[in-house]
Amino acid sequence: MALYDSLFSQLDMTAAQLLVTDNDFRDPEFRKQLCHTVNDLLSLKVIPIFNENDAVSTRKAPYEDSSGIFWDNDSLSALLALELKADLLVLLSDVDGLYSGPPSDPKSKLIHTYIKENHDGAITFGDKSRVGRGGMTAKVKAAVYSASAGIPVVITSGFAADNIIKVLRGECIGTLFHRDARQWVPTGETGTREMAMAARECSRRLQAMSSEERSKILLDIAKSLEDNENKILSENAADVAEATEAGYEKSLISRLALKPGKVSSLANSIRVLANMEEPIGRVLKRTELADGFILEKTSSPLGVLLIIFESRPEALVQIASLAIRSGNGLLLKGGKEAKRSNSILHKVITSSIPESVGEKLIGLVTTREEIPELLKLDDVIDLVIPRGSNKLVSQIKASTKIPVLGHADGICHVYVDKSADKDMAKRIVLDAKTDYPAACNAMETLLVHKDLVQTGTVNELIVELQIKGVTVYGGPRASSLMNIPEARSFHHEYSSLACTIEIVDDVHAAIDHIHRHGSAHTDSIVTNDSDVAELFLHQVDSAAVFHNASTRFSDGFRFGLGAEVGISTSRIHARGPVGVEGLLTTRWIARGHGEVVNGDKGIVYTHKDLIV
Amino acid sequence: MALYDSLFSQLDMTAAQLLVTDNDFRDPEFRKQLCHTVNDLLSLKVIPIFNENDAVSTRKAPYEDSSGIFWDNDSLSALLALELKADLLVLLSDVDGLYSGPPSDPKSKLIHTYIKENHDGAITFGDKSRVGRGGMTAKVKAAVYSASAGIPVVITSGFAADNIIKVLRGECIGTLFHRDARQWVPTGETGTREMAMAARECSRRLQAMSSEERSKILLDIAKSLEDNENKILSENAADVAEATEAGYEKSLISRLALKPGKVSSLANSIRVLANMEEPIGRVLKRTELADGFILEKTSSPLGVLLIIFESRPEALVQIASLAIRSGNGLLLKGGKEAKRSNSILHKVITSSIPESVGEKLIGLVTTREEIPELLKLDDVIDLVIPRGSNKLVSQIKASTKIPVLGHADGICHVYVDKSADKDMAKRIVLDAKTDYPAACNAMETLLVHKDLVQTGTVNELIVELQIKGVTVYGGPRASSLMNIPEARSFHHEYSSLACTIEIVDDVHAAIDHIHRHGSAHTDSIVTNDSDVAELFLHQVDSAAVFHNASTRFSDGFRFGLGAEVGISTSRIHARGPVGVEGLLTTRWIARGHGEVVNGDKGIVYTHKDLIV
Repeated sequence: MALYDSLFSQLDMTAAQLLVTDNDFRDPEFRKQLCHTVNDLLSLKVIPIFNENDAVSTRKAPYEDSSGIFWDNDSLSALLALELKADLLVLLSDVDGLYSGPPSDPKSKLIHTYIKENHDGAITFGDKSRVGRGGMTAKVKAAVYSASAGIPVVITSGFAADNIIKVLRGECIGTLFHRDARQWVPTGETGTREMAMAARECSRRLQAMSSEERSKILLDIAKSLEDNENKILSENAADVAEATEAGYEKSLISRLALKPGKVSSLANSIRVLANMEEPIGRVLKRTELADGFILEKTSSPLGVLLIIFESRPEALVQIASLAIRSGNGLLLKGGKEAKRSNSILHKVITSSIPESVGEKLIGLVTTREEIPELLKLDDVIDLVIPRGSNKLVSQIKASTKIPVLGHADGICHVYVDKSADKDMAKRIVLDAKTDYPAACNAMETLLVHKDLVQTGTVNELIVELQIKGVTVYGGPRASSLMNIPEARSFHHEYSSLACTIEIVDDVHAAIDHIHRHGSAHTDSIVTNDSDVAELFLHQVDSAAVFHNASTRFSDGFRFGLGAEVGISTSRIHARGPVGVEGLLTTRWIARGHGEVVNGDKGIVYTHKDLIV
Repeated sequence: MALYDSLFSQLDMTAAQLLVTDNDFRDPEFRKQLCHTVNDLLSLKVIPIFNENDAVSTRKAPYEDSSGIFWDNDSLSALLALELKADLLVLLSDVDGLYSGPPSDPKSKLIHTYIKENHDGAITFGDKSRVGRGGMTAKVKAAVYSASAGIPVVITSGFAADNIIKVLRGECIGTLFHRDARQWVPTGETGTREMAMAARECSRRLQAMSSEERSKILLDIAKSLEDNENKILSENAADVAEATEAGYEKSLISRLALKPGKVSSLANSIRVLANMEEPIGRVLKRTELADGFILEKTSSPLGVLLIIFESRPEALVQIASLAIRSGNGLLLKGGKEAKRSNSILHKVITSSIPESVGEKLIGLVTTREEIPELLKLDDVIDLVIPRGSNKLVSQIKASTKIPVLGHADGICHVYVDKSADKDMAKRIVLDAKTDYPAACNAMETLLVHKDLVQTGTVNELIVELQIKGVTVYGGPRASSLMNIPEARSFHHEYSSLACTIEIVDDVHAAIDHIHRHGSAHTDSIVTNDSDVAELFLHQVDSAAVFHNASTRFSDGFRFGLGAEVGISTSRIHARGPVGVEGLLTTRWIARGHGEVVNGDKGIVYTHKDLIV
């Protein structure tokens, strides 16, 4: 109390000690007076400091006896909060709040919002593991009691001087207990964590299955989709009707609608996947380390994938079946306009997953608010695959430490060399720009060798593009030479019937331009000079580089990868169009006969590469 | 002014307009009076608002004429800051500050601290590219003028209402101009960015070389190391002497010192690397997309690597030669105790890099302060490889978006099954724990089948470990059964002669334990039951899983990978011990004859896998 006195006096505040006993609270008159006293003190700007009146307390073993109306400072604080009808109770601890496990375990995460229904199990785990949480059990008990009586509680650390101020400002620190917490967060942050952990658990059981068993799940899903076609189509029709009524764009509604025959074509593509070569457990490399001691590098599932997709409900089916084929757990977040379609498809798929694996293998995330929580779970989610607009991909890349497979932009170039066949150049340029202008692999910038200005080829290319409805902008050189409007920037993805053209001195200048302004997605050269072609193919540092072919070929299906997971402009893990191998990692497996290292004297290394 | 008036009056503040002309400032008496006036106004809490007195100004073309003492609001503000001896000048713009390039270009980065020596070039670039920076040129000119006269300047956005408050609080927003900035940041943030960009430029030239040319660089480096052996050893001796004097730990000094013969053994290992199979441009997959239209997946350098290592100067040589062999650019940051050794080794190596590539291929980062700046450069650095303590790796992983190759912890398990050969189990357990207890692949937890309690095997294993000096702790079950002290947590890396032992029911319980408490690094089973072994090998989801072999084999050299880049517990890109392939990515190369997509009607796909 002396310490409180001296500390508060430094702030020109006065503190008053109020010593109470369990017995006091049995007297209704005391409880009424207590309120008056505290309110009067507060109106005089005096801070009341409560404590148990140990000197007159009848408690026998104060640290063990938890009977009575209150039995420690935590339960006293909850009791006072109720009596005084407090707006908020803040409990200060020596840790930052309530953790999902022992705070010393790096896997433990701070729980920001306590939800009794979700966390009750997690907390007893902390106790059972015998590592103990010190006084946290008492704090949580008091907090749950107070919150359920309608007074919110925040448990936070008392070490940071401004934590109380932060709590009052509403900042997200410590652990909040609130009667209505359950309703705010449908699945909740721990809900999302548990969802991801459950998906990993289930995926381990899926991996342990034989290839045939995994195939069978896919065949069951295919059948179940066909059996439930009417239900699926009627839910989809409801989505489409609602989107139409809400006045969504036509293109969105067209992506949303499942066309006639789509369900059976989806079912058939799942059957193809069911019969594909087993992707898990393939031996990629085999080495004899020493006589009879064999090491294998094998393909293995990544773990848990988070896929965020927009509009198209069939994406859910394709991704879920790819995940099952590759032994991964999956969390799916679809667009809200496809809510009903996604929900029925998810239900049909998960109901075909056998109990021995568990239907939590594939979790469906339903609210947008859960995405930021999911993106924090870099310890339980291994890869995020966003399928949607550049903006979506950029936002996700900027807001997570989880690796992201995808591309934020596709600024693809076609370079027409002086030796190019003119007709071929026209064909490729037109296809690259007009086959599907909104695609990421469509041409955005056309680079042309300077010699082709005088031959008229540049002009012909511009005219051909304009005839096809393409608006052509020029770089500084092309705009003045060819009298076309100047492009604002070379680093621009039109995603529409528009492109930039620029004149370059030679193939080296073209490569420099691509390195400086491109997005390392897909670039193509048109030339009949094979030396120039090879130079371009070897030096352009992009995910895909083509000679005499349209950039539009940069695509999983066209590359023969089967199902496409996405196109990656990252250099890590997977690059360019990515098939099922993007969902796999490797494991090293060695089979020995008691080999030990013993300072490398224990073994005679042979390090022979064996045939796979 | 009316707007200022009405806005300030809402805050109960008064504003006063002061209209000045260029001519006023020519009068020393005016300048003296100006100071008094402003100080008096401020003491009355009146905000002075300056503007040019256009009505009496003699300027003819106010938007073009930049002669005189001031010529626009930016130069007026700098002039006033000087006259009034301001503590700080804040210039508000419509962008967040000064960018390295046009703010609309996603590659442009906000410059937090302007350093004339580093940024002067970068800024003219923005002008030359014709995209323009609006009024930023004038602001930078005014800011440089004011800062060089001793008044710091911050350029920040005027759109965020609290930016001025943030600047006054000293938060890192906008761009700071300060006379002493050069001294704070030896190479500066743009210095590190330029270093990384130069490394990428050089690496592209290195990639364009033939395999023989790259080999020759390595052979030249080997020779140069031998030629400069005396210089290297004397610099290293100076480091060792200083570290000894500073009272560093013996183990650190031993890692720091280059042993006799080390330089020539390093040179020889570089020669081995020079003669290894070319890692770049290898065809990993070849597909016929259509008749005569061939797609290849080829190995390709990652780009720019950042390696952060502690103590051992030879690491610099090994890493630099690996980077050259694999065509990558490199930024190196060594421990400060090896400063002289690293500096001479870096000099010897880069002086052997031909001018056609450029010695900036390998940058040496010399101050710790540059690391946070480097870790922000996720657009120019492709991979970070930390080589040092778990703490270093954890810190780096937590503070960057760049992919990190490494492992923060190695909690490796050995599980001894009931069917294990007792002698083999002892041999493997002892090797796994005692061969090198501080290694990441050393055993931290020994799991034993419950049946081996009664047979006495558990007791024998404990005794054998204790004889070798290992302190043995128990999990809840083992500690009570075997009467040994209880371990604080299963998720603990002792990195010393200590380990935890726990009794488990069977192989399934062992796998569960490893999944729950391990770090997915390396785990081993000892058993004579091949079914149990295969179950373990297939289900344990760790980077390396062994049967009847010591966990200590999990190592690049022992795996026969040649040089070891690191051991990765990430599932993305590379997993387990990583050799040169961890420094590579892939590119897709297609050679066609004018193929176009044309809605996939333009081509007949064959999708034939061809032999590589």
